Amino acid sequence: MTNLDSLLGRIYHRAADLRDRNFLLTWDLSLPEVETVLDAANALRELRRMGRDTRLFHTGMAVSIFRDHSTRTRYSFSSATNLTGLEHMDLDETKSQIAHGETVRETANMLSFLTEVIGIRDDMYLGAGHTYMLEVAEAVRRGAEEGVLDRAPTLINLQCDVDHPTQSLSDLAHLAQEFGGLENLRGKKIAMSWAYSPSYGKPLSVPQGIIGLMTRFGMDVTLAHPPGYSLIPEVEEVAARQAAETGGSFTKVQSMEEAFDGADIVYPKSWAPYAVMGERTKLLRARDRHGLDALEQRALGENAQHKNWTCDEAMMARTNGGEALYMHCLPADISGVSCEHGEVSAGVFEKYRAKTYVEASYKPYVIAAMMLLGRFAAPADVLKKIQG
Amino acid sequence: MTNLDSLLGRIYHRAADLRDRNFLLTWDLSLPEVETVLDAANALRELRRMGRDTRLFHTGMAVSIFRDHSTRTRYSFSSATNLTGLEHMDLDETKSQIAHGETVRETANMLSFLTEVIGIRDDMYLGAGHTYMLEVAEAVRRGAEEGVLDRAPTLINLQCDVDHPTQSLSDLAHLAQEFGGLENLRGKKIAMSWAYSPSYGKPLSVPQGIIGLMTRFGMDVTLAHPPGYSLIPEVEEVAARQAAETGGSFTKVQSMEEAFDGADIVYPKSWAPYAVMGERTKLLRARDRHGLDALEQRALGENAQHKNWTCDEAMMARTNGGEALYMHCLPADISGVSCEHGEVSAGVFEKYRAKTYVEASYKPYVIAAMMLLGRFAAPADVLKKIQG
Amino acid sequence: MTNLDSLLGRIYHRAADLRDRNFLLTWDLSLPEVETVLDAANALRELRRMGRDTRLFHTGMAVSIFRDHSTRTRYSFSSATNLTGLEHMDLDETKSQIAHGETVRETANMLSFLTEVIGIRDDMYLGAGHTYMLEVAEAVRRGAEEGVLDRAPTLINLQCDVDHPTQSLSDLAHLAQEFGGLENLRGKKIAMSWAYSPSYGKPLSVPQGIIGLMTRFGMDVTLAHPPGYSLIPEVEEVAARQAAETGGSFTKVQSMEEAFDGADIVYPKSWAPYAVMGERTKLLRARDRHGLDALEQRALGENAQHKNWTCDEAMMARTNGGEALYMHCLPADISGVSCEHGEVSAGVFEKYRAKTYVEASYKPYVIAAMMLLGRFAAPADVLKKIQG
Repeated sequence: MTNLDSLLGRIYHRAADLRDRNFLLTWDLSLPEVETVLDAANALRELRRMGRDTRLFHTGMAVSIFRDHSTRTRYSFSSATNLTGLEHMDLDETKSQIAHGETVRETANMLSFLTEVIGIRDDMYLGAGHTYMLEVAEAVRRGAEEGVLDRAPTLINLQCDVDHPTQSLSDLAHLAQEFGGLENLRGKKIAMSWAYSPSYGKPLSVPQGIIGLMTRFGMDVTLAHPPGYSLIPEVEEVAARQAAETGGSFTKVQSMEEAFDGADIVYPKSWAPYAVMGERTKLLRARDRHGLDALEQRALGENAQHKNWTCDEAMMARTNGGEALYMHCLPADISGVSCEHGEVSAGVFEKYRAKTYVEASYKPYVIAAMMLLGRFAAPADVLKKIQG
Repeated sequence: MTNLDSLLGRIYHRAADLRDRNFLLTWDLSLPEVETVLDAANALRELRRMGRDTRLFHTGMAVSIFRDHSTRTRYSFSSATNLTGLEHMDLDETKSQIAHGETVRETANMLSFLTEVIGIRDDMYLGAGHTYMLEVAEAVRRGAEEGVLDRAPTLINLQCDVDHPTQSLSDLAHLAQEFGGLENLRGKKIAMSWAYSPSYGKPLSVPQGIIGLMTRFGMDVTLAHPPGYSLIPEVEEVAARQAAETGGSFTKVQSMEEAFDGADIVYPKSWAPYAVMGERTKLLRARDRHGLDALEQRALGENAQHKNWTCDEAMMARTNGGEALYMHCLPADISGVSCEHGEVSAGVFEKYRAKTYVEASYKPYVIAAMMLLGRFAAPADVLKKIQG
Repeated sequence: MTNLDSLLGRIYHRAADLRDRNFLLTWDLSLPEVETVLDAANALRELRRMGRDTRLFHTGMAVSIFRDHSTRTRYSFSSATNLTGLEHMDLDETKSQIAHGETVRETANMLSFLTEVIGIRDDMYLGAGHTYMLEVAEAVRRGAEEGVLDRAPTLINLQCDVDHPTQSLSDLAHLAQEFGGLENLRGKKIAMSWAYSPSYGKPLSVPQGIIGLMTRFGMDVTLAHPPGYSLIPEVEEVAARQAAETGGSFTKVQSMEEAFDGADIVYPKSWAPYAVMGERTKLLRARDRHGLDALEQRALGENAQHKNWTCDEAMMARTNGGEALYMHCLPADISGVSCEHGEVSAGVFEKYRAKTYVEASYKPYVIAAMMLLGRFAAPADVLKKIQG
C-alpha cells in the first residue's frame, strides 16, 4: 500500500465531515478533523508530485481579503486556488469601496455570488480580526438562507488576531514529517519562545496558533517570554485545557534558557506584548500618528531590554542533544543578516534554513485541503478519482 | 419543457446576432437583442446551478480597464470571466503607462492580441467615458482590419458617463423575475427618483440607464428630481421616444412624492446635477484642488436643501398598496446606518435588503452573456452543448 | 506540408534542449536554441489561430516580479501564461515584504513551491537587474537541490539592465516574417540609432538586445549615437565577436545620417548615456531626490543638443530605396503627437504604425515558447499533440 493509499484510507475511514464549515480557529475543529486536514494536504501534495490533474472545480472564485501585505500568504492562497481549479481574486482593501464605510454584510454577499472560498487576513487590530471573520461568516450564511447565494462560501482564516491556522497546520505537517507521524510527537518538548527583534508590533497569532494546536498531541508545550509579553488569556486557557485532555503539558516559563532546556523543537519568534497591541489598536483606529510613534519608541525601548532572548548556538546547545528542530514562520530576523541583533543567529538559521523553507512549503496544500474539505461531501472519493 | 429549454428555444428562434458587436449603450441594441442578453444570462445562471461546466473558451484574455475603484463591478467582471473560461487581467491605470500619455489606439491594440473581451469603467468625466469607449472600439476594429489583430475583442461598458448597461440589464432581469416575465412589466409604474445623500458627484449613468432601458417595455417611467438635477438631455430624449414607441410613458415630475404615488417599483438614488458634473470634469482635468473643494461645498450645500427626498416608510406608503418593489444599485446611503440622513430609511432598506442583493446577483451573468453573444455565432447551440 | 508542419519538423530535428534552462540573455543561447524559440513561438501562434487548445499545463503558477510599471510586458506575460495553461500571479514589489529587506533567496523559494515560471522585469538600476536575476536563479536551483522545491522554475528575463530578450526575439520574429526567413537577413543593414526624446533615463536594454541578437545572422549592424551615449562595453564586445563569427559586421558611427544611409531596417530609439544611468543608479539608491532632479536637468539639457537625431522623412530618404523597415519597441515618442519633438515624425510613424503593432504582437508567443521549451523535454511532440 502506497503512502497515498494510506492517506486516502484514513480520510475515508475517519469520515470527518467538514463540508460547509469555516476554518477560523484550529481549536474549533475536532482532533479527527485536524488530522483530516493534514492527510488531505499531504494527499494533494502527493497527487501533484505524480503529475495528476488536481482540479476539483471547473469554474468558481476564491476571493482573498488582505488588510495588510503578505507576499507569502498571498502566494500560498493563490497557488492553492490554482491547484484546486478556482480563480483567485485579490481584494486590496485600500483600493476598494470597503474602505469607504460599506457594510461588511453587503460586501460579503456581493463578493460571494460565484465564490467557493473566501480567505481573509486581518491581524492588525487586536480584537478585530477574528470578529470581522465571524461577521463575514454570518453574512454569507444568512445570504444563503435568504436565497441571495446558492451556497455560502467557505471561510479560511489566513491570519487573524487570535489564530493563524494555515501556519500552525503547516508547522504540524512539518513536525509529522520530521518525527515520522503525529503519534511520535507525544512526549516531545516544544519551546514556543519570544525572541528579540528590532521591530515591534508583530502579531500574537503565531505563538497563539502554536500553543493552541500543539497541545492537542500530547506534547510538552512550553511558552516563554519576558514579563509583560503575555498572549491573549483565553488562548492560554485553551492550551492548558487541551494539554490536560491529551496527557501533555502546557508550561509557562520566564526565560528562553528554561524553555530550551531539553527541548526537541524550538520556535523562537518575536511578538508584541498583548497590552501594547491593545494600545496600538486604539491609536491606529484614532489615526494618532504621534501616539503611534511614541508607543513604538517605548515598545522598542522595552524590547531592547531583552536582546539576550536570541536563538544562538549557546542557546541551541541546551536543547535535547543540542539538536532540537528549529522552526520559524519566516521571515526570521537573523542577526548580522537582516538586522544587527535578531531572533536567531546566522549560524543557527543557516543550519536549518532549508528545513524552514520546507516547513513553509506545506501551506499551499493545507489551504487547498481546506478548499476540498469545505466544499465536498466525500473528499476521499474526490481524491481517489484524481489518483485515477 | 424546463425553464432552461424555453430560454434556449427563445434564444434560438429569436436569432438576434450580436457577434462582434460591442455593448456600450442598451439603446444601441434592438429589443430582441436586449431580450437575448437577458435570456442568455438566465440560461448561464441555470447551467451553473445545475453544476455544468460553463466554459466557452479554453484560453483567452478578458481585460478590464477601471478609471476608478469598484469592488462590485470588478468582482462581477472577474467572475463572469471565470465562468466563461477566460482569464481576467485588471489594468490599474494609475500604475500603467496609459497614465503617462500613451495613445489610446496603441494601448488598445497592445492589450488585444489574445483578448476576447475588454470591459471598461470610466464614469468620472462627463463627456469622456463613452467617447473613450468609442475610441477603443474604433482602435481595435482598425487593428483587425490592418491585420494587427486576428479579431477585434468585444467591448463591454462597465459604466460610463452616459449608460450603465450591465447594471440596468441586471435590474431588468430582477424585474422580470419579480413580476413573472418582461411582458408583465407593461403598464407598471417605475419611479426613478433622485434621493438625498451626504455626498456629491455620483454619476448619472444609473438613472440614465434606467430611463433608457425601462421605457422599452411599455412601462410608465417617471423621473423625479429637484430643480437643477437634470440628466443628459439626449438620454431623456431617447427615453421619451422609446416610451412613445412601446405604448408606455416617460414623465418628469418635481417631487419624490409625486413619483412614488401609485408606483409599482421605486428606484430612489442620489446623483449629481448635470451642470455640477460638467464643472467638476473641468476642475478634475485642471487638477484644481481648491476649485474642487469649493464646488463640493457648494454642491453639498445645494444637496442639503433636499433632505426630504428620502425613501422612508411614509414615502413608501404612497406606492401601489404601499408595497412597491424597492430597487438600488448598491451601496445605498442608509439613514442611521451608513450616514445620518441618506437615500433610504433603515426600515425600508432592511425590508428589501435581500431583494437588492438578489438584484445585484444578475450582473455576473449579464456580463457572461455579453461574452457569449459577442463572440459566438450560434449561442443557443453553445448553451445546448453545455447543457449536455 | 503546411507552415506548421515545417515549424514542428525543424523543432524536432534541430533538437535544441532548453529544458530547465533560464532565458536571461540571448547570447547565452546557442544559435539553434534561438531559432527553436522563434519556431516554437510561431507554432504556438499558428495553433491558436487554428483554434487549438494550447494549454501545456493543467495547473501551475507563473509569477512575475516587476520593479517598475509596464502595461505591455505585463499583458504579454499574462497572456502567454494563459495560453499555456498556467496561472499568473503578479508581484507588486512596493506592496510586498520584498521591499522590506527580505532576502532574495528566501522569497524566491517561497514563491516557487507550485511555480513553473518566474518572469522578472528589473531595468531601473544599472548593474542590478541581471545580477538580481542570477541570484534568483541560483536560489531556486539550490532550493531544488536541497529538496525544498520539486523542481526549480524557469526564469524569463522580461527586461533587465543588460538585455531585453523577449523584445529582441519578437523583433527578430517580425524581421523573419518581413524578409521571408532568417536566412534572408544575411547582408541586410540594420541601423540601431539613438534618437532624441524629451525624457531621460530610458534603459539601454533595447539597443543592447538588438546588437546582441542581430549580429548573429550575418547582418550589418550599425550602432549610432551622440558622443557619450555609449552602451555597456561588454555587450558591444559580444556584438563585435558575433558579427565576426557570422560573416556580418558591427559598426559604430557618430550620426543618425550615416547609420541610415542605405539601411534596410532602422530602429531609432532614445536611451540614457551609460554614465548617466550609473550616476542615476547611485542617486536612486541613496534616495537623493535633489541629486536626481539635478541629474535630470543636466541630462535633458544634454539630450536637447541632439534634437536633430530624429527619424523624419528626410532621414528615411537616406535608407535603401527610401523604404527601410522602421521598427520600435513602443511606445515611441512621436513628434507633434506624444511630444513636441521626439524620436520619429508623425508621418513616418503613421506609415509604419500597423507594422510596429504587429512587431509587438509576437511577444506573448515568444514568452509562451520559453515556457514550453523551459519545461518540456520533447517540445515538438507536445506541439504535435496540440495540433491533433
